[in-house]
Amino acid sequence: MMGQEFLNITDPEDVKRIINDIPINKRIENISIEDSLRRVLAEDVIATINLPPFRRASMDGYAVIAEDTFPASEDNPVTLKLLEIVGAGDVPEKVLVKGYCTEVATGAPIPEGANGLVMIEFTDKKDNKILISESTAIEQNIAAEGSDIKSGELILSKGTRISPDKIGVLSAIGMKKVSVYQKPTVAIISTGNEVIRHDEELTYGKIYDINSQTISSAVRSCGCIPVHTEIVKDDYNELKNKINEFKDLDLIITSGGTSAGRGDVLKEVLEDMGEILVHGVAVKPGKPTIIGRIRNGEDYKFLLGLPGYPVAALMVFYVFFAPLLKKMAVIDTSNILEDEKILKLKLSRRYRPARGRRHYVLVKIEDKTAVPILKDSGAITALAKADGFIEVPKNVEILEKGSIVRVSPLGNW
Amino acid sequence: MMGQEFLNITDPEDVKRIINDIPINKRIENISIEDSLRRVLAEDVIATINLPPFRRASMDGYAVIAEDTFPASEDNPVTLKLLEIVGAGDVPEKVLVKGYCTEVATGAPIPEGANGLVMIEFTDKKDNKILISESTAIEQNIAAEGSDIKSGELILSKGTRISPDKIGVLSAIGMKKVSVYQKPTVAIISTGNEVIRHDEELTYGKIYDINSQTISSAVRSCGCIPVHTEIVKDDYNELKNKINEFKDLDLIITSGGTSAGRGDVLKEVLEDMGEILVHGVAVKPGKPTIIGRIRNGEDYKFLLGLPGYPVAALMVFYVFFAPLLKKMAVIDTSNILEDEKILKLKLSRRYRPARGRRHYVLVKIEDKTAVPILKDSGAITALAKADGFIEVPKNVEILEKGSIVRVSPLGNW
Repeated sequence: MMGQEFLNITDPEDVKRIINDIPINKRIENISIEDSLRRVLAEDVIATINLPPFRRASMDGYAVIAEDTFPASEDNPVTLKLLEIVGAGDVPEKVLVKGYCTEVATGAPIPEGANGLVMIEFTDKKDNKILISESTAIEQNIAAEGSDIKSGELILSKGTRISPDKIGVLSAIGMKKVSVYQKPTVAIISTGNEVIRHDEELTYGKIYDINSQTISSAVRSCGCIPVHTEIVKDDYNELKNKINEFKDLDLIITSGGTSAGRGDVLKEVLEDMGEILVHGVAVKPGKPTIIGRIRNGEDYKFLLGLPGYPVAALMVFYVFFAPLLKKMAVIDTSNILEDEKILKLKLSRRYRPARGRRHYVLVKIEDKTAVPILKDSGAITALAKADGFIEVPKNVEILEKGSIVRVSPLGNW
Repeated sequence: MMGQEFLNITDPEDVKRIINDIPINKRIENISIEDSLRRVLAEDVIATINLPPFRRASMDGYAVIAEDTFPASEDNPVTLKLLEIVGAGDVPEKVLVKGYCTEVATGAPIPEGANGLVMIEFTDKKDNKILISESTAIEQNIAAEGSDIKSGELILSKGTRISPDKIGVLSAIGMKKVSVYQKPTVAIISTGNEVIRHDEELTYGKIYDINSQTISSAVRSCGCIPVHTEIVKDDYNELKNKINEFKDLDLIITSGGTSAGRGDVLKEVLEDMGEILVHGVAVKPGKPTIIGRIRNGEDYKFLLGLPGYPVAALMVFYVFFAPLLKKMAVIDTSNILEDEKILKLKLSRRYRPARGRRHYVLVKIEDKTAVPILKDSGAITALAKADGFIEVPKNVEILEKGSIVRVSPLGNW
């Protein structure tokens, strides 16, 4: 079974198109406002109340009949009688009439009869008399009911990412629950006879599982839920059974089992359960990448197969798979800033890529320059040092020191 | 009690210095690798095993005695007898001797006696004989035990932020738990007689609580845990009791209760329980900001008091308080990229700030330009529309259309 090569190496841009065409099934759930940070609105939010909900004071001062204050000046203050004091949260008890004023705190309701507010700074209190030294215009320093938001008004659009300020908006109209897109569910299967779990004993010939942990957390950072994370042997039946078991989830991601030397177990399983869309990609690292779909009743489930080597697996995940996961999780809609997250830095040294395939090179950021990490895709030291990665097109022979490269984050910055 | 003004308005740069001097108490906890995404290492991680843990094949092919292959060429292949087949995860059973070879898969252990590996591409299999058409150099295509990482080597430094790739590194050496900085605990108190919880009925004169929700999620986005989120009346005893109740947490954040018209309840409480460090800041919005410390045995607890208006509260939180929270949560150590998160965009229109104080202006991002949102700091519509904010120094009279402004995110981009 060894020695078989990939039949049709696919161009990376074609792979992106194939992945972009994968149909997405968005589900919606209702969650409490408290839990909604970083989620995405699945429906327009319409105000159900006016804001402010009542006519209120924008400043500390005295609610007046504006006309009473028109003659007022610093030299000739107008004197009004204090009718009552209304704090924030209080309800005014008396209707204001000519010659009177009501003391109000910021946020307090404006009493009936009043049509102006004199700021505290322009007043003086003497016993029960208030000296007004500046006139107020009609409705000045008063916020009308609904002047900020009117009941029935659209306040947040479907697709809005919920940040703390948007939680403030939802709270302002008294919402308790909000409709957001559900987090897609993903199964992660790490394959390999040599791979063991962390609670197993490391015997000769075995290595600890890396990819299921790495990819699970990368899946989480894309806004999806890694519901199952398992290790499976390079065995046709075992792999097929696992895939069948996870067919109800939104997506299955595997790592390993795609290399010719493993007998191409995953390829055989995919051929029997559905069809292969991509088998081998013209990138380095990441050539042994496989994409397939599995029949599931009338429908298909998609399986994304990563290479076994940890660096290759992560690179392929970020470059090709992460955009799909973010789209499924609806966390990049209308994000005009995606491109700004890519840092433009100078290359610290000359870099000469091997030719023939598009390259992805891990880099470390040092003194605001990108330092290429020259390790093979099996090296864990490369991951330990890396801050991000750069893309090198396939026909580039040399990247000179000091040339500007675009550094994508590993996860988020 | 009304009409009292702030005694000493503090310059915003002095406020930043005062906050920067607040002592921080870092605590450490052990958590499982699965839960460690986005946390920060509290200790250096030293490798406890070699990686790879055994001498292994880097390629699919045949393990050989290199000297046997030296005469090999495409025209005159060397023929070796197949001793055994070793897959990944298998243990070789036979010692290799001259004239023999062992078939090995990528990741499989190299049998004793072998000192080279011929890639599968340069071989041909005939019955039990392997034709080798290219020689191998000594140790070629073989990864020595510990060639990637040696036991005892420092692999990740204290202070490293844990991204998916770093989880891969921890997994590779079989770690189950990791020592990270604990998330600081924060109490959030929203004050105001007019403020009600979402499960209460909105009667005349009342408004739904906004700030405790907004600030809780902003606290969460800074890597801290909002353990208590409560609404308290503008009442000396009630506020004092709550502050006493929360004295064991790492920090207390309040909103409201700092405005002169509320009787400066918070100021009085702070004066009695400790001392006031800042009372009024020369920024707009955000002037009624208060910072104090409370005696707690031999020690002090710090209280950060935000203005009551939601926009002002969020602005002050992001500009002045968030850096402290991130420092407490140790999520910005050695983050050389903080500045890059600030977008440099063109202003969509001319903007004329009111003079005399440093301004923070909410902006919406549209067509890659920053559009100022011209609403007062009580307006919820401003929050609904905002993507970020810009800073305008106090002596700027006008910002011309098209001038470059630095847009900070509300939360994270």
